[in-house]
Amino acid sequence: MEKLELRYEGKAKRVYDTDQNEYFWVAYKDDATAFNGEKKGQIVDKGLVNNQLSALFFEEIEKAGIPTHYVKLLSDRDMLVHRLEMIPLEVVVRNIVAGSLSKRLGVEEGFVLSRPVVELYYKDDALGDPMVNESHVEAMGWASMDVAREIQAMGLKVNSILQSILVKAGIELIDFKLEFGVRDGKVYLGDEISPDTCRYWDIETREKLDKDRFRRDLGKVEEAYQEVYRRVKAVLA
Amino acid sequence: MEKLELRYEGKAKRVYDTDQNEYFWVAYKDDATAFNGEKKGQIVDKGLVNNQLSALFFEEIEKAGIPTHYVKLLSDRDMLVHRLEMIPLEVVVRNIVAGSLSKRLGVEEGFVLSRPVVELYYKDDALGDPMVNESHVEAMGWASMDVAREIQAMGLKVNSILQSILVKAGIELIDFKLEFGVRDGKVYLGDEISPDTCRYWDIETREKLDKDRFRRDLGKVEEAYQEVYRRVKAVLA
Ligand SMILES: Nc1ncnc2c1ncn2[C@@H]1O[C@H](COP(=O)(O)OP(=O)(O)O)[C@@H](O)[C@H]1O
Ligand SMILES: Nc1ncnc2c1ncn2[C@@H]1O[C@H](COP(=O)(O)OP(=O)(O)O)[C@@H](O)[C@H]1O
Ligand SMILES: [Mg+2]
Ligand SMILES: [Mg+2]
Repeated sequence: MEKLELRYEGKAKRVYDTDQNEYFWVAYKDDATAFNGEKKGQIVDKGLVNNQLSALFFEEIEKAGIPTHYVKLLSDRDMLVHRLEMIPLEVVVRNIVAGSLSKRLGVEEGFVLSRPVVELYYKDDALGDPMVNESHVEAMGWASMDVAREIQAMGLKVNSILQSILVKAGIELIDFKLEFGVRDGKVYLGDEISPDTCRYWDIETREKLDKDRFRRDLGKVEEAYQEVYRRVKAVLA
Repeated sequence: MEKLELRYEGKAKRVYDTDQNEYFWVAYKDDATAFNGEKKGQIVDKGLVNNQLSALFFEEIEKAGIPTHYVKLLSDRDMLVHRLEMIPLEVVVRNIVAGSLSKRLGVEEGFVLSRPVVELYYKDDALGDPMVNESHVEAMGWASMDVAREIQAMGLKVNSILQSILVKAGIELIDFKLEFGVRDGKVYLGDEISPDTCRYWDIETREKLDKDRFRRDLGKVEEAYQEVYRRVKAVLA
């Protein structure tokens, strides 16, 4: 497999063409950004953790019957994926209130929701990724009502799959963000599943083991990423 | 019917007990507020227009099969309604982009949506009425998933009913906000339907005939309220 032209450079990954049209080469970066790009930095070996941890999760999700873009690892920091036509939405699933939802609802961080919350955001940096609902999605032509519902249902299923892995790793899944795309008329889970895109708390100590350590200058950022990867690898070994 | 103790005083109405427990006496005020109470003023005879215009709309909506709290007019500015257990949500229906949606989606005011958009807001002045979705509503216990869906469906039906009246009055219904409540386990449309809670544009001139004249200091505020009332009354006469 050859790495050819750079197709997109995002905040966390570079996406390259390959010599086969149906595949993309994804290279995970150590660059870290927060607050819509206002805060910038580096997290040593983040690319390595996010690539390999995402691979582990995608494998389990695929086994549970949800199509994912993951094909195989190409190196510590590189992954081969199916090329998708991305849907410009972020699907956020939340089990416990944190971050923006805490401000939106005036509820303290840590409040246990009586059921998982599923949110849609329109992926647009210039607009600050506004929250939307199914009717906006259909009215603006970003996806059909059916697809909007399907990706939310897939988000809830991924939530159960990830929770069942993470609980064994002593990690509570607070919330996470997914991105989906379409290939041959079918919806696939794309992008990544990592401490950049999830909130993980240690079940016992409630210590944060995710990007909030970077966002909020809590220190031990690299250690947290490594720790999550180590624990999940051990559970799935 | 007797007007007894003041139960709530809101920004636009006073709600009183009556000598019968199942009814409330609603007195419409001329007070006008905007931007979550930051801007304050008076619109002469707004209370009169909003009371009588709401009554006309509630009658048509009831005829079309949607239960409303409206019982009868008590005076120019007073209305008898069924006492409801209010659901703390605002249901907003939009046909054309205006106001906050224009900012949220970065789309110019006047953009015609390819289908009506239905939004839910948690009615809480201190939080600035945040936008929410059905999963927040159920997770926070504000209403069941079924009720959250029912009030959105009712919102879409009210949209069709109002549009069919307003088009005959030469008015385009841009968007509007509804509030619902429960009585004997059944969902009723409550609150008001007025130029305070709807955006109306003249179909020909695109002139604004609603509270945006007050919000944006466009002048001829009273005239706009009177004009809408006059036209709708003529259509329904
Ligand atoms: N399988 C895929 N096919 C096409 N694009 C993808 C795929 N998976 C992820 N992407 C996209 O790759 C881009 C780069 O990722 P990232 O660096 O996380 O970007 P961003 O800064 O938008 O978050 C994103 O736009 C993401 O949606
Ligand atoms: N039928 C009803 N039964 C009980 N409360 C109602 C009914 N209709 C409207 N209300 C409530 O009456 C209150 C007063 O109305 P308003 O002045 O518009 O208040 P606000 O400042 O909250 O918009 C609101 O809280 C509204 O939800
Ligand atoms: Mg990304
Ligand atoms: Mg009101």
